[in-house]
Amino acid sequence: MCNLYCLLKQDCDRLQYMNFEAFILGTGGMMPLPGRNLTSVLLRREGDLFLFDCGEGTQISLKQLNLKWKKINSIFISHMHADHVTGLPGMLMLSSQVDRDDPLTVYGPGNIKDYLEANRRILDMYINYEIKIETIDAPGTILETDSYTVKAFNLFHTKPCFGYSFTEKPRPGIFFPDKAELLNIPRGPLWAQLQAGKNITLDDGKVIEPNQVLGKQRSGRKFSFVTDTLYSDSIAENVKNSDLFVCEGMFEEALSSSAKEKRHLTAKEAGLISEKAGGIRKMGLIHYSPRYMDKELKILLAEAKEVFPETVLCRDRDCFDISYID
Amino acid sequence: MCNLYCLLKQDCDRLQYMNFEAFILGTGGMMPLPGRNLTSVLLRREGDLFLFDCGEGTQISLKQLNLKWKKINSIFISHMHADHVTGLPGMLMLSSQVDRDDPLTVYGPGNIKDYLEANRRILDMYINYEIKIETIDAPGTILETDSYTVKAFNLFHTKPCFGYSFTEKPRPGIFFPDKAELLNIPRGPLWAQLQAGKNITLDDGKVIEPNQVLGKQRSGRKFSFVTDTLYSDSIAENVKNSDLFVCEGMFEEALSSSAKEKRHLTAKEAGLISEKAGGIRKMGLIHYSPRYMDKELKILLAEAKEVFPETVLCRDRDCFDISYID
Repeated sequence: MCNLYCLLKQDCDRLQYMNFEAFILGTGGMMPLPGRNLTSVLLRREGDLFLFDCGEGTQISLKQLNLKWKKINSIFISHMHADHVTGLPGMLMLSSQVDRDDPLTVYGPGNIKDYLEANRRILDMYINYEIKIETIDAPGTILETDSYTVKAFNLFHTKPCFGYSFTEKPRPGIFFPDKAELLNIPRGPLWAQLQAGKNITLDDGKVIEPNQVLGKQRSGRKFSFVTDTLYSDSIAENVKNSDLFVCEGMFEEALSSSAKEKRHLTAKEAGLISEKAGGIRKMGLIHYSPRYMDKELKILLAEAKEVFPETVLCRDRDCFDISYID
Repeated sequence: MCNLYCLLKQDCDRLQYMNFEAFILGTGGMMPLPGRNLTSVLLRREGDLFLFDCGEGTQISLKQLNLKWKKINSIFISHMHADHVTGLPGMLMLSSQVDRDDPLTVYGPGNIKDYLEANRRILDMYINYEIKIETIDAPGTILETDSYTVKAFNLFHTKPCFGYSFTEKPRPGIFFPDKAELLNIPRGPLWAQLQAGKNITLDDGKVIEPNQVLGKQRSGRKFSFVTDTLYSDSIAENVKNSDLFVCEGMFEEALSSSAKEKRHLTAKEAGLISEKAGGIRKMGLIHYSPRYMDKELKILLAEAKEVFPETVLCRDRDCFDISYID
């Protein structure tokens, strides 16, 4: 009996388990370098793909990952500087090579629509699916489904710029088969309904609520993406409780005045955001200045870790498996 | 005396010798692949740089070459399809990182001006030098200096498309010091003037013409670049006598109907152009369909070599040293 319970419990967990991974397509700021593509992150959630920024060469990095992929659902652009968008024409054309029926939505601020329309018109790009363009004018929820929410929040750069958080909706609590047995609920579809959070009615008319057989509701996972901004407390508020927070750490502290002038974050400021935010499990630094050779990035790491120890350096084509905590 | 003659002769040759190299920045058609950038060739002539086509990722390949370079003088675009131009914004911004005073000229057909102006406007590209845009409406000489001529000639694709030839002006013939000695011309500046093709007058009033001390005028070197076109005899006429002819060989013969439909050359057709042209020392195939893995390119090579044995497969970052024949 115990084995059966365990098996059922695993099945329940399996039903509720979804892959959630972040693939780092590039880590460079300003210009690509050999071995360091421009900043871009691909988020994969149970086969759905979401791309954050798309500089020149992003499609090459995606191919190097050699993922089996059918389509990118949405692309989120932080801002309209060349190093964050000039990979879009190639990526949108590449997406015509894979089998897809659904539209692809590109979200971004400023003149994203103008950019895409001008390039499509001038270059006669071959696109065999629908592209929707959603211009972001203000912070807020930009995409919501049954299972996740994407929010845009203000960043502070030389032109309109947004950070993004991707948050799964809370999952039901753990299912306790022994409690269901004690309530004489027959194993089968009724168990599944309770696990899905629905009330059921037994043959004797008794109504059972999910909370009688489930543990406490569990939080979903959260991924946040921030690049090209000055420091602001408001960023911390938006990225709090991220399981993975990918954040620009372009310069070392010795260059903080230059960073401020160009409206970029130092690695230490990225750490300060994470530290202030609270609940961040891991911060990955990204968008390194081309002035730093790969071996020099440890300077940035050390400065960020001083204030936020759970910092790592993102490297091109790193994969972060964003697991459940509970 | 003989040694002195030889030394002088070497010096003369050295004065007349100029590096002339073609660096293959990418060999892919349609889309970049890992290890195969989009088709682009960089021509270097004694420190001057000329770029032919500039698809996404071209700047990365240029950096991988690790050349010491100061500036690209001119960029020649074959046609306005994405895989031949979307590297331009990055390349033009990269050119702001190197020390330059001279303008950079971009030559291309169709809406090249619209493309560059729209992208500069929308992306606020940082450019700290003058960019001139020369729209090519018809074949002919598009650039001429004291030492070379660049011509554009018609190609036959799905939108306006041009091939380019870069031809050095003829060099003076070989200088024969013994003839100069026999004519009692004192060694020094007068020799140099004769070598440069100028008449001189001796102290006794006698006029000496260069042809009295020089061999037959020697031809300059020629590089030609052709991609994205149907076969046409007129292409052969334009590329004849090329020391290096870089030519699209996108498909094998088994796919010739598909090639025709898409208005591209098969490798064999590239060979036929070279064979018909005459005087071509070497043809380098380029712009391979992504359907061919690297090891499959030998199919294309074999088919081209059948009609033009002096064919090679271009590979990313190959360098061709285009030497003098005489």
